[in-house]
Amino acid sequence: MRIVVDAMGSDNYPQPEIDAVIQAADYWSDPILLVGKKELLQPILDSRNIPKKLVEIIHAPEVLEMNDKPARAARGKSTNSMAIGMDLLKTGEADAFVTAGNTGGAMANALFRIGRIRGVKRPAVTGSIPVHDGVAVVLDIGANADCRPEYLYQFAIMGVVYAEKVFGIKKPRIALLSNGEEPGKGNTLIKETYPMLEASDLNFIGNVEPKEVYRGEADVVITDGFAGNVFIKTSEAVASFLTSTIRTEIKASPISSIGGLLAKPAFSRVGKKLDPAEYGAALLLGVDALVFIGHGRSCKRAMFNAIRMARQAVENDVLAAVREAIKSRLDAGRSKETE
Amino acid sequence: MRIVVDAMGSDNYPQPEIDAVIQAADYWSDPILLVGKKELLQPILDSRNIPKKLVEIIHAPEVLEMNDKPARAARGKSTNSMAIGMDLLKTGEADAFVTAGNTGGAMANALFRIGRIRGVKRPAVTGSIPVHDGVAVVLDIGANADCRPEYLYQFAIMGVVYAEKVFGIKKPRIALLSNGEEPGKGNTLIKETYPMLEASDLNFIGNVEPKEVYRGEADVVITDGFAGNVFIKTSEAVASFLTSTIRTEIKASPISSIGGLLAKPAFSRVGKKLDPAEYGAALLLGVDALVFIGHGRSCKRAMFNAIRMARQAVENDVLAAVREAIKSRLDAGRSKETE
Repeated sequence: MRIVVDAMGSDNYPQPEIDAVIQAADYWSDPILLVGKKELLQPILDSRNIPKKLVEIIHAPEVLEMNDKPARAARGKSTNSMAIGMDLLKTGEADAFVTAGNTGGAMANALFRIGRIRGVKRPAVTGSIPVHDGVAVVLDIGANADCRPEYLYQFAIMGVVYAEKVFGIKKPRIALLSNGEEPGKGNTLIKETYPMLEASDLNFIGNVEPKEVYRGEADVVITDGFAGNVFIKTSEAVASFLTSTIRTEIKASPISSIGGLLAKPAFSRVGKKLDPAEYGAALLLGVDALVFIGHGRSCKRAMFNAIRMARQAVENDVLAAVREAIKSRLDAGRSKETE
Repeated sequence: MRIVVDAMGSDNYPQPEIDAVIQAADYWSDPILLVGKKELLQPILDSRNIPKKLVEIIHAPEVLEMNDKPARAARGKSTNSMAIGMDLLKTGEADAFVTAGNTGGAMANALFRIGRIRGVKRPAVTGSIPVHDGVAVVLDIGANADCRPEYLYQFAIMGVVYAEKVFGIKKPRIALLSNGEEPGKGNTLIKETYPMLEASDLNFIGNVEPKEVYRGEADVVITDGFAGNVFIKTSEAVASFLTSTIRTEIKASPISSIGGLLAKPAFSRVGKKLDPAEYGAALLLGVDALVFIGHGRSCKRAMFNAIRMARQAVENDVLAAVREAIKSRLDAGRSKETE
């Protein structure tokens, strides 16, 4: 298996990327490709005595910056590290690409250089979040701000494959993220998608509100890319707001500071349980290659876990399974039409 | 001032309502009306020796249940406590109505029995959340799952009045809740609303993501009722998920349990700071009367604070100010048309 990692993606590139790549190559005894500015990367690898056959640098003279316009950057700067990394997927030289760069840039590059799986209307950014007793797959969390019911229907088909193949969830429970649990709840999009999912052979359990998501009542949560983005970013914002408020209040008195010290291992366990670094990388599901996007703030562990998820996806051939799932629905649709 | 409180709204009615009403009537030395089943309420008040002139019961033989269809209930069960409470606003016998009942039911009753302020296209459920160093007003958090740019524009006009009059915020900063801060971000609705707010004389600061909301960078956050509902409910869900995870982990070892005990006052301060009971009641802004809706899980303190907010709104004549703000925009629009 060949994973290619973007060395120039995270806010602190290339350190988290290099550290994670070295760890991963060693851990799985499997060479990894690192794409980025050779003059920047080579000296670091040399200084750490990393054998070339373990981490191979693919030179990319340019960097896709956070404020580059995604669509323009995908076409224009065709020698940026994302473009070159994705070209390796297209030519079959690598099996999956991992980046902590700009999501819009990754999607634009992926659409331009790789394209969609045949039959997929819109690829979705597919995230996964820690919930009570497990994980929930959420899509779309950012690619498609305006959606149609057919898109959401396909997100469900693809999300199921992902939940099964990457997280090993059997018969994933699919739900629509809505403003109420009852069948009639939702905006027009949700109300129109509901009967499509209900009529399908998918394991559709209806609408869920955010609290049901966090209670772990659904495995695959379907939403448009706007509401999904609000959902994911609100989750991060509240967790961070709450954590910093707790920290401030604990430090406000000597006694509670001591309490905080004694409870520190407990807080660490909470942090680890809920850390987006655990499985924070999102997959561009529907693109005809495996492209994983980590958080811009990714640390070494986050990048390492993103590589782990990418390997999992390659090993279980998520791509073939998504192609097949989409194709079989298309075929079913066609045979119905000709009946 | 006469506040009328729905005795039959909260999940644990009528206890939180009665307790809060007694406290409020005493605190402000101002009689309060309590609407609900007299045969249920009277014995409780009698047993506590509450003088009739302090808390007056208005009999409502029916109760709007959580699973009643809002629109049907508003028309059908016209003797439910919400309907009767709102009728008192219409006739001028009361200045504001406070309920912890079903939001949909309250909106349906309000629209049917009271109606909109002249010129208001859609009333919005207007919430307020604790953020870094203050409070943010968020609307719509639930009434209008599908919105048009004109609605959002009016939400901004009304939200400003509310932030000024109820929270005393001068020149409130208005922002659109979006999936990115840059001006081009958002779904079609946000992209179309942006230039309208930019061209207005409102203090529009652009798009915000959830993290900026929690950092306290905007005073009035504008959103459609679907995304706004996801935002508010995700906030609650994550706070509750995080809190319960922390509790479980702290209890998992004797040492961290001791730490937790020592830090307890700090946790209480956090709880109080972030408690939706503090100012969790939402106003139906755009309805031609003051209707406040508390959380279904409202405790006595939440109900008391809802009454406090209602009093604040009456004292500062929010209703007249909203009428005036909407009217002046309408007039400005008309004079432009005739120019």
